[in-house]
Amino acid sequence: MAAPPPTRPRRLLPLSLGLFQGALLLFFTIFVTYDEPSARAEDANLVANQLYGIFPLFQDIQVMLVVGLGLLLTFLPLYGLSAIAHNFLLLNFSTQWALVLQGLLHHFHHGQVHLDLHNLLTAEFAAVTVLISVGAVLGRTSPCQLLVVATCEVPIYLASEWAIVTHLGVLDVGGTITIHVFSCYFGLGVSKALFGAARQPVHPKETPTPRSDLLSLVGTLILWVFWPSFVAVLCQPGDAQHRAILNTLLAMSASAVTTVVASSLLERDGKLSPGHLQNGSLAGGVAIGAVADMAVPPVAALALGSLSAVACVLGFRFLTPLLARKLALQDQCGIHNLHGLPGILGAAASAVAILVASEDTSRSRFSQVSPVGGNASEAVGGRWGDHGAGRQALCQATGLAVAIGGSLLAGLLAGAALRLPCLARPPEQLCFDDSLYFNIQDQAESPGPGSTAEEEALALKERV
Amino acid sequence: MAAPPPTRPRRLLPLSLGLFQGALLLFFTIFVTYDEPSARAEDANLVANQLYGIFPLFQDIQVMLVVGLGLLLTFLPLYGLSAIAHNFLLLNFSTQWALVLQGLLHHFHHGQVHLDLHNLLTAEFAAVTVLISVGAVLGRTSPCQLLVVATCEVPIYLASEWAIVTHLGVLDVGGTITIHVFSCYFGLGVSKALFGAARQPVHPKETPTPRSDLLSLVGTLILWVFWPSFVAVLCQPGDAQHRAILNTLLAMSASAVTTVVASSLLERDGKLSPGHLQNGSLAGGVAIGAVADMAVPPVAALALGSLSAVACVLGFRFLTPLLARKLALQDQCGIHNLHGLPGILGAAASAVAILVASEDTSRSRFSQVSPVGGNASEAVGGRWGDHGAGRQALCQATGLAVAIGGSLLAGLLAGAALRLPCLARPPEQLCFDDSLYFNIQDQAESPGPGSTAEEEALALKERV
Amino acid sequence: MAAPPPTRPRRLLPLSLGLFQGALLLFFTIFVTYDEPSARAEDANLVANQLYGIFPLFQDIQVMLVVGLGLLLTFLPLYGLSAIAHNFLLLNFSTQWALVLQGLLHHFHHGQVHLDLHNLLTAEFAAVTVLISVGAVLGRTSPCQLLVVATCEVPIYLASEWAIVTHLGVLDVGGTITIHVFSCYFGLGVSKALFGAARQPVHPKETPTPRSDLLSLVGTLILWVFWPSFVAVLCQPGDAQHRAILNTLLAMSASAVTTVVASSLLERDGKLSPGHLQNGSLAGGVAIGAVADMAVPPVAALALGSLSAVACVLGFRFLTPLLARKLALQDQCGIHNLHGLPGILGAAASAVAILVASEDTSRSRFSQVSPVGGNASEAVGGRWGDHGAGRQALCQATGLAVAIGGSLLAGLLAGAALRLPCLARPPEQLCFDDSLYFNIQDQAESPGPGSTAEEEALALKERV
Repeated sequence: MAAPPPTRPRRLLPLSLGLFQGALLLFFTIFVTYDEPSARAEDANLVANQLYGIFPLFQDIQVMLVVGLGLLLTFLPLYGLSAIAHNFLLLNFSTQWALVLQGLLHHFHHGQVHLDLHNLLTAEFAAVTVLISVGAVLGRTSPCQLLVVATCEVPIYLASEWAIVTHLGVLDVGGTITIHVFSCYFGLGVSKALFGAARQPVHPKETPTPRSDLLSLVGTLILWVFWPSFVAVLCQPGDAQHRAILNTLLAMSASAVTTVVASSLLERDGKLSPGHLQNGSLAGGVAIGAVADMAVPPVAALALGSLSAVACVLGFRFLTPLLARKLALQDQCGIHNLHGLPGILGAAASAVAILVASEDTSRSRFSQVSPVGGNASEAVGGRWGDHGAGRQALCQATGLAVAIGGSLLAGLLAGAALRLPCLARPPEQLCFDDSLYFNIQDQAESPGPGSTAEEEALALKERV
Repeated sequence: MAAPPPTRPRRLLPLSLGLFQGALLLFFTIFVTYDEPSARAEDANLVANQLYGIFPLFQDIQVMLVVGLGLLLTFLPLYGLSAIAHNFLLLNFSTQWALVLQGLLHHFHHGQVHLDLHNLLTAEFAAVTVLISVGAVLGRTSPCQLLVVATCEVPIYLASEWAIVTHLGVLDVGGTITIHVFSCYFGLGVSKALFGAARQPVHPKETPTPRSDLLSLVGTLILWVFWPSFVAVLCQPGDAQHRAILNTLLAMSASAVTTVVASSLLERDGKLSPGHLQNGSLAGGVAIGAVADMAVPPVAALALGSLSAVACVLGFRFLTPLLARKLALQDQCGIHNLHGLPGILGAAASAVAILVASEDTSRSRFSQVSPVGGNASEAVGGRWGDHGAGRQALCQATGLAVAIGGSLLAGLLAGAALRLPCLARPPEQLCFDDSLYFNIQDQAESPGPGSTAEEEALALKERV
Repeated sequence: MAAPPPTRPRRLLPLSLGLFQGALLLFFTIFVTYDEPSARAEDANLVANQLYGIFPLFQDIQVMLVVGLGLLLTFLPLYGLSAIAHNFLLLNFSTQWALVLQGLLHHFHHGQVHLDLHNLLTAEFAAVTVLISVGAVLGRTSPCQLLVVATCEVPIYLASEWAIVTHLGVLDVGGTITIHVFSCYFGLGVSKALFGAARQPVHPKETPTPRSDLLSLVGTLILWVFWPSFVAVLCQPGDAQHRAILNTLLAMSASAVTTVVASSLLERDGKLSPGHLQNGSLAGGVAIGAVADMAVPPVAALALGSLSAVACVLGFRFLTPLLARKLALQDQCGIHNLHGLPGILGAAASAVAILVASEDTSRSRFSQVSPVGGNASEAVGGRWGDHGAGRQALCQATGLAVAIGGSLLAGLLAGAALRLPCLARPPEQLCFDDSLYFNIQDQAESPGPGSTAEEEALALKERV
């Protein structure tokens, strides 16, 4: 963990990013075009209406990823600029990289790649996995290392998403398994391989302040508000989308209240932990993804939201310290508590929902009015066709296992790559500090004519 | 005002909230289901279109309540985390509680309660009244006390809303009377009953800093931007909704400019008061609610916006200190200036608009082109049917009186309940401080290996 | 640069603003009404659908201007309240002023002015030019001076926009030339005329702190997310709007990544400059406006985004210091780098796109499938009718020249007016400080009963 060689790695980031931008331009020049304009007036009207349907949700998701997630990561008091900027850079880089890979993989056999808002959205979903994973190593990794994570994770996500959704037929409209569980274990694998068996010491700059906790909580609230758009954007328009929105709203509302209950019971003096609130409030959104568009009764969404909030808070209180002690596993943002545990709960819930809905159908076949789940099972039933509820439930479990196993393995390999010395891992004493990545102008450098001792004292305080 | 008994009340919050969550699950299990899925394709299309119409507005309102209002309340420099978190908890708890009550009261006779986005929206409107009311006692109340306010206020709001809108037939699409006036006087009642005749001393932590004022102003701006969605979401789609949006935009624009005029004239040296700007800019939105969808001429919206901003700023400058001196009335956020005075102005404006529109109709009956109000009166005219403009104007006044009287009385009763010692009212010296409700990690607790005196000094400053 | 006479100018702001509000009410009373309500049901449905199409984009733009731009300007650590408040005041004043002028100029010959959301939107676009221009003189101008800028700039913008778009027929759907280039050179003209040949010294309060840079970066991210709505809101619904959104998304994504490359290569030690990131990430959005709805291939949007980010970062690194040294040109926010250079690039790109598309059409006239630009040129081709691609490209260049020349001249004149002593230009030592415009309550003023030395020390720190 010696200080990195000062000159070469400093150029690695712009050079590799610049090269990638060049390659991107080349790829787009050769392969990518827009859809042909609609020839007829009614088509144009249709395009406009489809756009009005998807575009507000797309914008909501952009706000979540760029502003909400960025702010959530500012809980490290001296690392806010870096956290927001790296998140922003990774989102853009990963989306572009996913566009290239999607273009090559999925659309290449059609000759031209036709770009539309839907492509961009699925590419952005690939980028989300990167943004979640790097939460495990936030503050102790250089931008070069983060780009390597993105470079590795996006293709593996695309393969895993194909295997889980297309090949296995797992139902997961909100990305509970394919995005949250996958990225969580990928990130934990990266962290384990990067930091090895040495437990990371507590760093004096990694303790949040009330002010940094406040900004981070604002990030949580932005994510909380727009989460329904994230879950529902790829749903079938109409009833299924409406149901996905309502289920997500209920789950997140239950999460918010239950987090207060759980945190207050576990913390000393019945106080709340800001970290619990920042994460637990979102746990319901993670868990609901796999069942959001199924016609489960509303109470299921509430119960799942509450359960996952409890799991998240318990994870922060007991599991994270345990993993750090026993496995020397570093999880800076607690992604295992926000994405791992609720994701597993959500996957289990989807299997249960499928089994229950199927039983309800067979029981209520001859009754005119089914009390709760009747229409649910019909609506869900149509989706897994003729291979039965049991098999579909098994699918969900298999998908979960594939997501965990594959991502953990891939993450370990990617994390090993991060140990390359040229990637400029920051030395421990410079971690969690913006001044390593940003030219923060010192007041001392530009004192100005009227600078007095008083003003310099002021300037010093402003730096805080 | 002795320090609260340290152990029992600390458990009261999680236990009562946990019990409520359990009851909510039970209620949802037994009673609540989603709408039946639409059987036919054109229905599904209709559902999708309705969803696209209401969902963006719904999200706007969520942003207002969760992010905008939360930030607005962070003007207390050491109480930001608590203000945002309590606002968030109250919103969720009150919405859930309103869903239960609405389910029991309004829909119970249909057997099943069918949940949709519209139900959630009206439940959230009930929650808004709680969020406004507790502004009067911000910083001097425990979360338990706030939950009692919510428990009392939501059913009374539902009853009052039924009496004013359904029974009396008051026109109030944006909630000027039913939400703003109601919640203001409820909150003042609570404050009066809670604090009694003793005037609260000025607390050293209740003075805003430029930094806390800045975040609070950002909250104002978020509320300002999305306010048209709040006013227009329940309007008839089409012309009325378009008009409501335009009227709200005009009123709020006039409020913003007039607030600067009024504040600058009243403050010493012609400077602005941050508090005036934070509140006055929104006064037009409060006042316009009752007339927003009426076909008043645009100038009426501008004039109402200007007038209500003047009333709000005058209220802060003269009325709040007067009420504090004469009645020992504590109004921490100045809800009387932002919600009370503009709300009364808006109610009066709605009565005047109805009378003027009716006169215009009778005058312009034989003229082909009516200059301004002709179509207005026709559009409005249809709404109060055959019982005449005079009677409708009287209705508006009666509705206002009911809202003020009922809420003040109910607020006084609720406030008396808050004096129960088990509710853990915070002792005066610990008010306005996050450390009473949050486990804020002290740097001292986790010094880390490399902690030096310099770093501890830094940590101390970070806490600021 | 003596201290301003203390009493009279303090009243000038509220009195002139108040007078303007009165005149606005009078104007609206006499001239402005809403559209007649739609008589038939299908019309009402149409109105509702149009509203659902434009209203979310309108709200996005409001968030950009009020919250995003406001936060972007808070990079001055002690001037955040003033920056946000002045931005908010100017937006409202300029929009109202533009509504009046638009009403008088464009709609007056129809008798009544019919106000709708579209009018408000174009008035807000006029206001945007003011908000951009005053960035050049941020922190060194009084609100009175800013209002004079707005009063001068709005009519000149309307005239210039008429000359460029209506008279010359320039294609510029996203306002690259008419808004960004125009307002940039207007602002530089104002700055030059106001500050004259004396180079402004570096002020001790104009250096950003990490905390103020963080808030400013959040503003950038909000602008970045919603920029597609700004560019696409006035596009033809359907394919053109879809294309404009996609082009903007691609350009801004390329800008974000390229900014990191360019800043990291230019700054010492390969670090990033917060200012580069805050501005460069948005450069692609400025440049793409003129070609956004043309059927250029996607790679053109990426390339334009990258190029304009490079231009912006180079501008900050070399051109701004050069202009300050050689011309004593003060550009506080670097508007020349964010709006000037990328705007010129965008205008040039629009001319090139038109020429290339025209060549592609003639080349591919007999080929069935045109590889990239074929449909593009058809779609664009229809827009410049029969006077040929060459002439249209010339038009774009002429429009750019008119925008630069006209705005520079007008800005110089407006800037000269700002030197009037009654406008209360702030003395140098009080610049960049909120306390000149806001009554920031000193803790000392309201010590409260329990105030101790410790609390006063705390209060002092809170002020920081």
